Amino acid sequence: MPPDPASPHIAVYPGSYDPITNGHLDVITRAAEIFDELVVAVVNASVRKDRYLFSADERAAFVDEATSHLPNVRVETFDILITEYARRVGAGAIVKGLRAISDFEYELEMNQLNRHLAQDIESVYLMASPQYSFLSSSGVKEIATFGGDVSDLVPDLVARRLKEALAH
Amino acid sequence: MPPDPASPHIAVYPGSYDPITNGHLDVITRAAEIFDELVVAVVNASVRKDRYLFSADERAAFVDEATSHLPNVRVETFDILITEYARRVGAGAIVKGLRAISDFEYELEMNQLNRHLAQDIESVYLMASPQYSFLSSSGVKEIATFGGDVSDLVPDLVARRLKEALAH
Amino acid sequence: MPPDPASPHIAVYPGSYDPITNGHLDVITRAAEIFDELVVAVVNASVRKDRYLFSADERAAFVDEATSHLPNVRVETFDILITEYARRVGAGAIVKGLRAISDFEYELEMNQLNRHLAQDIESVYLMASPQYSFLSSSGVKEIATFGGDVSDLVPDLVARRLKEALAH
Amino acid sequence: MPPDPASPHIAVYPGSYDPITNGHLDVITRAAEIFDELVVAVVNASVRKDRYLFSADERAAFVDEATSHLPNVRVETFDILITEYARRVGAGAIVKGLRAISDFEYELEMNQLNRHLAQDIESVYLMASPQYSFLSSSGVKEIATFGGDVSDLVPDLVARRLKEALAH
Amino acid sequence: MPPDPASPHIAVYPGSYDPITNGHLDVITRAAEIFDELVVAVVNASVRKDRYLFSADERAAFVDEATSHLPNVRVETFDILITEYARRVGAGAIVKGLRAISDFEYELEMNQLNRHLAQDIESVYLMASPQYSFLSSSGVKEIATFGGDVSDLVPDLVARRLKEALAH
Amino acid sequence: MPPDPASPHIAVYPGSYDPITNGHLDVITRAAEIFDELVVAVVNASVRKDRYLFSADERAAFVDEATSHLPNVRVETFDILITEYARRVGAGAIVKGLRAISDFEYELEMNQLNRHLAQDIESVYLMASPQYSFLSSSGVKEIATFGGDVSDLVPDLVARRLKEALAH
Repeated sequence: MPPDPASPHIAVYPGSYDPITNGHLDVITRAAEIFDELVVAVVNASVRKDRYLFSADERAAFVDEATSHLPNVRVETFDILITEYARRVGAGAIVKGLRAISDFEYELEMNQLNRHLAQDIESVYLMASPQYSFLSSSGVKEIATFGGDVSDLVPDLVARRLKEALAH
Repeated sequence: MPPDPASPHIAVYPGSYDPITNGHLDVITRAAEIFDELVVAVVNASVRKDRYLFSADERAAFVDEATSHLPNVRVETFDILITEYARRVGAGAIVKGLRAISDFEYELEMNQLNRHLAQDIESVYLMASPQYSFLSSSGVKEIATFGGDVSDLVPDLVARRLKEALAH
Repeated sequence: MPPDPASPHIAVYPGSYDPITNGHLDVITRAAEIFDELVVAVVNASVRKDRYLFSADERAAFVDEATSHLPNVRVETFDILITEYARRVGAGAIVKGLRAISDFEYELEMNQLNRHLAQDIESVYLMASPQYSFLSSSGVKEIATFGGDVSDLVPDLVARRLKEALAH
Repeated sequence: MPPDPASPHIAVYPGSYDPITNGHLDVITRAAEIFDELVVAVVNASVRKDRYLFSADERAAFVDEATSHLPNVRVETFDILITEYARRVGAGAIVKGLRAISDFEYELEMNQLNRHLAQDIESVYLMASPQYSFLSSSGVKEIATFGGDVSDLVPDLVARRLKEALAH
Repeated sequence: MPPDPASPHIAVYPGSYDPITNGHLDVITRAAEIFDELVVAVVNASVRKDRYLFSADERAAFVDEATSHLPNVRVETFDILITEYARRVGAGAIVKGLRAISDFEYELEMNQLNRHLAQDIESVYLMASPQYSFLSSSGVKEIATFGGDVSDLVPDLVARRLKEALAH
Repeated sequence: MPPDPASPHIAVYPGSYDPITNGHLDVITRAAEIFDELVVAVVNASVRKDRYLFSADERAAFVDEATSHLPNVRVETFDILITEYARRVGAGAIVKGLRAISDFEYELEMNQLNRHLAQDIESVYLMASPQYSFLSSSGVKEIATFGGDVSDLVPDLVARRLKEALAH
């Protein structure tokens, strides 16, 4: 438990980042302008490890490398409720990106569950930039699986690692 | 034009507020926790005056009365592009509430138009609380028109003025 | 005020019916199987008369003619809140048809407003049959305005009257 | 096969109930006001047993316990088409709850498939109450997995059993 | 009535084009690659003239100017049902652009109405390019009304004429 | 690699077809009227074989049998990116059917990814006919699993093979 109350100028941006895309990076860059401190929080759920292509540590390392130029952004993994995690790092806000209707519906449900769990943590949403509105981690993995070029869609390191991981 | 650059900790919350509902008030209260300063900006469009039940000044007065207990909230009317207005008051962010899919679609379009007009102003979204997710100014006016009781849905002053305005 | 409490086996099916379509008729026919008594309630709003092509009495007459073979269906006009009207006729339920997402969003908002106004009146929804999922009163008027044939989309009397009303 | 035709005043409310939430309970309570008899029908699909956290018998027992105060509600498991099951218990209606757009789309598809299979069974829909619109069995399991408190979201027995089942 | 049957390689692209945007132009350019001949059909509805900022002839002239470099595109106004108009020009297909869910719902309804009216005319849809997904004629007029710069959103001639038409 | 550039009058219609339904057949029949040549392309993804009930060869054989009366339709399996496959067969267009909002959202994302990968291949969409708007391969398998009759929903051969494959 932090000694000070949660600050509305510190935010967490949670996700699985399997892997981080240029769309995530766009949201991170924009959120880092709004908040004094942004913690990118990579889910490390022990119960569903086989859902992920990369380990939580690898996923966090990709985010770390891609955001090294942003001084007020740091990366951590977490394995507790996001509202509880936000409290631990002293964050008063959770940031999420919205790309599509299906994102919105899911996030609305999560929003209301999270507010039920923690009234003092507010979630704020940023809309995806048009040029990234089609971009998702699963779409990137799909293309890479079929041998397509994803170098414009993800950071360089991720493009290289996807090629290695999915080459057959 | 402000001497200082726009601050990410100052936000405008634009709308027509015809009239303000308890749902708007909920968003204002929550946004006032996140931002150091919140300007509720009431649209005063000369070209569509007949769309509104109340004048821009009345609508602003209702908001003013309902938010008088919130020290970091102030109310203004505006009649220029919202992005330009945000710049004038030194705000780096626009706040909007999202209640439903149709809100989301409209706001996504507005978001992308506004980013096209002003890259430096970021829009952030809050989700409506479940108990207000059904509440809109037009719904309130609809009920009041048919003589229904709206005292739980809007501030007291608004409920009284709606009764006067719509009594036949 | 009815002497007896509202019955869950009596329902009202409110709408503007400007004019009734074969899609409305399909919902009426199906609702009349579920409820012992069905009151088709035609909106007679004095404040927005110019929105309608036909008068409330004409609209009710079209519904009446089209449902004359259904013994447990009757038609009335109303100009009060639908929840209050339901109480007056002793109905415990409001029936609505759902065709599309936009219907759903609007009806969800209305549902929650109506439950706020009257906890004892339950709204139940029927899904449009696929062959009528594209059919709306405004679409029918649009086609008729351009001289198209609507005889398969509305009852015969309505098709004749649309032709007369929209002929230029 | 029942000797009498299906009654429109008997309904089935099918689902997986893995586990029952307070949102399901709200729909059951409201549907039990509309119908003379309500059968909560718990899916017992042999082919996808690993999808469920609790067995069909456990899931039915949770529903049974939570609805013991409602005299016209009973619980059964079923492993045939829902339309065929409705016929077996003499029900003329299937009840479903709608929370969100994604529910609506899925239910619209199911509705039309079911009508194709059985024209005489009508499906009727109730809208979720606002305070339960965010609540799903999967959301509850997600929170419980991360050690969150779900005691306000599900019946007491379910909260206790979730804790046991998901403790690691 | 054309002497030959409708050709699937001739298409009409109907709309109000009040005014044409760069998004419309993108769809026209792409459709002109798919079809041998493309007729941009500008609605000239006598019954709703006041809905439009520009006359049908002006709207058509803007389209004409903006598409003069596309040899297989021509522009016409029409005031009959679009399916009948398609038949008159020998077109076997109607082309429409889809930007958002609300477009999709409206177009699905129109599609089914049109197929009801003319089984032999097929409607085909193109998705808006991401950079134009936020762009609509009404959005452009909104910005221009408030004095915003629309020169990147519409052809040059349209930008100039909007400035003249909306200057107060 | 084809010697000639891709033709806009040749199209591919990709999918998993596990199994083909009468809804797919309706889209194929309509697309075969628009395009001179239509290649139904059956996904043969080595990485997710267990997702499918039937092998890629069986799925293609079902499509082949059901479309044998359409002279300009042929069937193939593919295991590369669909845009690359389209190029290989000289197709300038990809055809997809749209049934519902969820289809639309998914297809919009795919559209934008595919345009990113191959600017020269245009995707065109047809709307499902109302009578097939509820029909999906997974719905058909669901019904067949519970012993329901699917003979009106799929070609005869498929109905027989589903019965064999899912009989327990």
